Formats: sequence, structure tokens, C-alpha cells
Amino acid sequence: MAEATVKSTSTTQPTTPPASDNPLLVEVLEGRRKSVARMMSLAESTGEANRALMAEMHRHAGRAHVVGLTGVPGSGKSTMARALTQKIRESGRTVGIVAIDPSSPFSGGAILGDRIRMADITGDPGVFIRSMATRGELGGLARATLDVADIMDAAGYDVVIIETVGVGQDEVDVVQAAHTVIVVSAPGLGDEVQAIKAGVLEIADIHVVSKSDRPDARQTAINLRSMLKLGSIGSGLSTWEVPVVSTSAQNSEGIDKLVETIDTHGRHLTDTGEIEGRRRKILEMRIVKAAEDIVRERILHKGRDKLERLIDRSLAQQIDPYNAAAVLLDDS
Amino acid sequence: MAEATVKSTSTTQPTTPPASDNPLLVEVLEGRRKSVARMMSLAESTGEANRALMAEMHRHAGRAHVVGLTGVPGSGKSTMARALTQKIRESGRTVGIVAIDPSSPFSGGAILGDRIRMADITGDPGVFIRSMATRGELGGLARATLDVADIMDAAGYDVVIIETVGVGQDEVDVVQAAHTVIVVSAPGLGDEVQAIKAGVLEIADIHVVSKSDRPDARQTAINLRSMLKLGSIGSGLSTWEVPVVSTSAQNSEGIDKLVETIDTHGRHLTDTGEIEGRRRKILEMRIVKAAEDIVRERILHKGRDKLERLIDRSLAQQIDPYNAAAVLLDDS
Repeated sequence: MAEATVKSTSTTQPTTPPASDNPLLVEVLEGRRKSVARMMSLAESTGEANRALMAEMHRHAGRAHVVGLTGVPGSGKSTMARALTQKIRESGRTVGIVAIDPSSPFSGGAILGDRIRMADITGDPGVFIRSMATRGELGGLARATLDVADIMDAAGYDVVIIETVGVGQDEVDVVQAAHTVIVVSAPGLGDEVQAIKAGVLEIADIHVVSKSDRPDARQTAINLRSMLKLGSIGSGLSTWEVPVVSTSAQNSEGIDKLVETIDTHGRHLTDTGEIEGRRRKILEMRIVKAAEDIVRERILHKGRDKLERLIDRSLAQQIDPYNAAAVLLDDS
Repeated sequence: MAEATVKSTSTTQPTTPPASDNPLLVEVLEGRRKSVARMMSLAESTGEANRALMAEMHRHAGRAHVVGLTGVPGSGKSTMARALTQKIRESGRTVGIVAIDPSSPFSGGAILGDRIRMADITGDPGVFIRSMATRGELGGLARATLDVADIMDAAGYDVVIIETVGVGQDEVDVVQAAHTVIVVSAPGLGDEVQAIKAGVLEIADIHVVSKSDRPDARQTAINLRSMLKLGSIGSGLSTWEVPVVSTSAQNSEGIDKLVETIDTHGRHLTDTGEIEGRRRKILEMRIVKAAEDIVRERILHKGRDKLERLIDRSLAQQIDPYNAAAVLLDDS
């Protein structure tokens, strides 16, 4: 039944694309881990060199149920991702995880030794984990992350989890590129952290209260429910009633219920046809982000000399950054 | 002397631009608060309508010492911003604050009643506070924030503080557009929060340890100093030795020292000529962000029909988002 859900989210997909001539892509489609990792590295590198390959890869994506998982630092979402993965695996489905949260044990958190805690799922051949670097050259994170998610999808992973910290415009944009967005809230975080969370509450398809073994967790769930009731959070564009699920990843409590709710949301999207609108919105965002990437690449690399001359003129206050950008765009 | 510092950071500036014909800009240059606020609203709105005005405004900016203030949720940077502002005001200088931290009492934090705590500086005519919305339409935050900072600069504020939470690519890019970047670390935050912080430590010109009244603050300062010594943080491109300043905003301890250190860094930039390289880097980032804004605007608004047709083709898997973006760019 869970399996059926995943498939049902893809009924609007067109017919299967033809077999590929590209040896790397053929291996990715067979799910070979080394090739999957190699293609991800190609996706992460800037440059237009691999775009034909990526375009072909994209035609093989679109079957996975993509789940966005977000929450402020300390909300316990990484522990949640692990518990969720284990539970989904028990149903026989495979799981890909893309983490762009620097605090995640999947990525930067590893410096603190957290990766050890992940050992129980990292040895599983039905799980593929990829962490994205969040620093470095300006931009490109959103496009690269979603390409990596597509590669997992094309490689046959049934559920793809995109984990990101719920702060930062790019990070929030990326998590919204999921079919099902989960926002994790923990009881007992400070005022500052709670306020940050406020910005991300409205994007949730499912609210999760973590650490439900704590005595103050009940109040956190009550607060979320009354905010939902008052309509102060929630988009109102969907007929989906946003649920609040209480979990304790420590005791594995509520994780069953969470997986069930994710599957129900997936079915809701296809049954109501809302999946179509969501797919359009996701594609719009991806096209815009890709356009930004292409422009940035053109300016910083191919058009470097022109850029330097415009910086000279800006320094001399003969032109402002906005008009300098307009000149570059119209020349390129 | 502090006053001299601010002026000295602007010796590479060209001659004073001619007086403006635009009545709004004339009032902004006179420092009239209502006009300053109005021009900020124009800067925040998308669209190219006000670009000529903004371009003229930019020519009057470049005198202020721009200070970036960042740190994770719970680091105490908002309290720090307030203490810093009061101390700088005591030296007779005026202060503008742009906050894009949703947890800041200057912006989103207001929902928690934190704005009350700000009362002591918000009544001061020598202080101008502007909070930026961090949600809404895709992107544009970086450009708008830096335009608002320029308006404060043009309006004559001596020091402009850009406060942002130290998570998220856009947010980190923005804070790096300052002359002096301060990263606030607090003792006693959880592992997850500390790991997030790691990503932003390397951009600091000055490290601040807040809450120095706490017994574990000494260890936080020692850790930062040893990381600096080992070269595991710090860019190495500057001859500036990144200091660690311990403060307690609660007891106003260390704030004198922090203001002095900010001024010393300002002098260092001009004395060594490093200000030039930094200005180029900032302009490069601003031009790139502006180009992204223009492209996004063109695609989402002017080119809406074309975008919808490409989304149709993407849904039918006839094209991938990247190539769709390339088509849009080459057509526009």
C-alpha cells in the first residue's frame, strides 16, 4: 500500500523515456552506487559541460516521492531523518537523503562525530546519503541540490528526503521543491529560535513535534494546532488539512504515524490533482534558479573582463551595481 | 578620533557628486526620516521603475563604516547590536541598523514583544532602524538589503550595522558586504547550533564572545583563539590579526573594547589599502545579485507566457529546467 502511494504520485508522468546511450547514465539507472556518486559530483560542478547528460537524466526522474524536512537548529530533525529512513526501509522502500543542513550528521555535523550515530543506516544498500557543501562560490546551491535529488530519483530510490535547516531564503526555497514538506518543531527552544521558526511554519504540509517524551511537548503541539485553527499559518490553497504529529525519535514513537501521514499526503496530491499545481510551482522555481546560475556563471567566468571594467566604473561611482548588471546582461 | 576613523575609510572615494534635482533624494541627503523610509520602500519594491533614482542615490553613498553582525539564533547578537549602538552614539556618531534576522527584536522578533527592549534606542533621532522581510517572492533580499544600507549611508549615518542570522547562503553573502564583519558566539549552545556556527566563523574580522558573565564563556574564547592560531578559521588574505573580544551586553562589559576594535579595523583597511580589494569584492557580489534580480524579474513577469509554455514542456519531460532557463535567457 505504501509502495502504491509512491507510484500513484507519478500517474501524470509521460511514457518511459528511451534507453540511454550514455554509459554513466545507464549505470545510474541500474542504481550502481559509484556511478550515482559520480553523476552527483558532475551535478555539483558549475559549468555547462554536463548539461546534455543532466537533461537526459531528468527524463528518467519523476517517480520518487520527494519529502522536504526542515526545522531550526536543535529541533531534532536529523535524528528524525534517521528514524524516518529506518521506518520507510521496513516497508521495503529505498531512501535517498540530500542534506544541506550544516548541522546535520549527514554533512557538517560529522565534524562533531555525529556521523557515528548514523552508522545504523549508512551500511544499508537501500539508503543513499549525500551532503551538499553550503559555502563557497556565490549561489548554485538550490539547483545542485535538486539535481542531486533527481539523480536519486532516476537511480530508483523510492523516497527522496531533502533535509535543510529552516533558515535562509535559498534553503527554504529548496525544501519547498518537495512534494511533501515536513516542519519539525521541538519543545523548549529559546524565544529567538522560536521566532525564526515562525517564518517557516507556513510552508508545512505536516507539522512534527519532536521530543514528545518531554513534558512541554504537549504544549508545543497545542500551540501549533491553535495556530492552524486560527489560520495564522497554512497557505489555504490546498484542501489538505495540515496535521500535527508528535514523535519521539529516541523511543521510535510516532514514526509509524508519520510515515503513514506522508503516504496519505502523497495520495491526497494525486487524488485531488493538486500534484499538478505543485509540479508547476516546483518547475518554475527550478527554471528561475537555473537562469540565475547561468547568468552568474556567464558574468563571473566568461565575462570576467567586462565585469572588472564595470567594477572599476562602480568604484569611481560612474555607475551603480544595478545598472552595471543591466549593462552586462544586455551585452551578453 | 573615532569620527576620523569613519572618514578615513573613505579616502579612496571620488569627488562629491553634484546636488540632486530629485526632491525625495534631496530630503534623504538632508537626513529627513520620513523621506529615508520612503526611499527604502522604493528600494524594497521590485521593478526597474526607480533605478535611475537609486543610481543617483548610490553616488552619495560610500562614507559610512558598514559593520556586518552575524551569529546563530541564541548567540545574543541582537542584544549586542543594541549595546553597540548605544556605545557608538556616546561618541557622537549616528547609527543605522538593517536587520534581516527574523529572530531580531528589530524585525520578526517584535511578535514576541522584544521590541519593548529596543525602546531605549528607538526614540533616539541619531538612530535609524529598518527590518527587512525575509519571505515572499523568490530572491531579491540581498540587493534590497544593501540598497537600504546605502540609503542610510547617503542619509549621513556614520555607522551602518547589517544584522543577519548566520545561516543561509544569501544571509552570509549579505553580511560579507560589510567593511567589518563581526561573528558573535555564545557559550553553552548545543552541538547542532555550534556546528552551524562553524560555517560562518571563517568570515569574521572580529570574533565576539557574548554572555561573558557566564562561567563557560572563557572556554568559548579559548576555543576560538586556538582555532585562529591553528589557522583552521580565517582567510589568510589579510594582514589583520582577527581578535576575540569578550563582552557582556547585560553588564555593558567589553562593549567599549568592541567599538575600539571596530574602529581599529576600519583604520587597518585604509592604512593597508585592503579597503580597495574589499570594495571590489563587495561590488562584484552586488553586481551578480543585481543581475540575478533582473533576470528573475524578466522571467517571472515580462516573460510569463514563455515561462508557462516551458513549464508545460518540462512537465511533459521534453526539456529539463536548466535548458528551459537557457532558452528563456537567449530569447530575452
